[in-house]
Amino acid sequence: MNKPIPSASPSRGPSDHEVRAQIVEAATEYFSRYGYEKTTVSDLAKEIGFSKAYIYKFFDSKQAIGEVICANRLAAMIAAVSANVDDAHSATEKFRRMFKTLLASGSHLFFQDRKLYDIASVAAASPWPSVKGYEEQIRQLIADILRLGRATGEFERKTPMDEAVNAIFLVMKPYFNPLLLQYNLDAAEEATVQLASLVLRSLAP
Amino acid sequence: MNKPIPSASPSRGPSDHEVRAQIVEAATEYFSRYGYEKTTVSDLAKEIGFSKAYIYKFFDSKQAIGEVICANRLAAMIAAVSANVDDAHSATEKFRRMFKTLLASGSHLFFQDRKLYDIASVAAASPWPSVKGYEEQIRQLIADILRLGRATGEFERKTPMDEAVNAIFLVMKPYFNPLLLQYNLDAAEEATVQLASLVLRSLAP
Repeated sequence: MNKPIPSASPSRGPSDHEVRAQIVEAATEYFSRYGYEKTTVSDLAKEIGFSKAYIYKFFDSKQAIGEVICANRLAAMIAAVSANVDDAHSATEKFRRMFKTLLASGSHLFFQDRKLYDIASVAAASPWPSVKGYEEQIRQLIADILRLGRATGEFERKTPMDEAVNAIFLVMKPYFNPLLLQYNLDAAEEATVQLASLVLRSLAP
Repeated sequence: MNKPIPSASPSRGPSDHEVRAQIVEAATEYFSRYGYEKTTVSDLAKEIGFSKAYIYKFFDSKQAIGEVICANRLAAMIAAVSANVDDAHSATEKFRRMFKTLLASGSHLFFQDRKLYDIASVAAASPWPSVKGYEEQIRQLIADILRLGRATGEFERKTPMDEAVNAIFLVMKPYFNPLLLQYNLDAAEEATVQLASLVLRSLAP
């Protein structure tokens, strides 16, 4: 973890991009061990062997680092969902998989990476731009699946797209929003299966 | 508020039932002014002019008093919902009104009786028996409306009743559970209208 401080000359040391990535990687490990809320940039700097001032050259604040960690994690969740959804053949199956994978990634974050879950939870409460982007991508996934199902004749076409997307987004929200998920973990798996079925009934032509 | 302490002889003073009601009434007023979490039975006793020991003769703990306040408030909410639902002619309209009135009562509690909302929120986190009873009554209301709609031909009859009731209950939960409502107040009115429409589409025969 104690890597040498790169030289100030950009041609000789690692690029800014590399240093940023290095700080984020170290911070991810650090926060997932010690938590996000109770640690400071000084603690982090000490741990990774950089000066606090050097870290501040790359990130304005602890939240700015947290934002990148959160965005990375949420991007990985969306990538997992997309991969799972792409594999499915029908819009119906894609929808079920999306809901299931979102819950699985959220629960994993909650149970396995509890300290990183804390970042996501702080992020969802504000909400940070990364969370807004994540929610936008979920809306996009829902819209794509709806368009497909409308094209194949699996789904009805009468309800305005915006309304259908938003209502489905709201049904799913307690299970993909990190702040809400913690209150909905009881029987969440059965809940999301039943909710997916309800949504699919609402989409019947 | 400073009512005389009743005599120990039950034939001469007010009945136990009356004293309990009197303590609950005073506590409701007290907690709605000073909050529930930060006050003690001693504070309450001082305010209403009873000894702490006398209050403990009727209630085992502060939570026992909070339970009754919470149960009273939730019963009033269910009564408001039932009255509104009874007035409606079709199962569809009854369902819309149930969802709308539940949100209205919850929001009222949140915005007007913020300090009592705190009790409800503590109660929902545990959850207290009163909250479980409230949720059971909401399930019952949903089941009654479903049965009516199935009988009149407004709703489909294929989905098992238990599953249909539970899924609808889960869709509505973020808007009637006091703990969750605080995170879902943004655009809650539009959200519940859209969710009610989605549920009704899922119920189409």
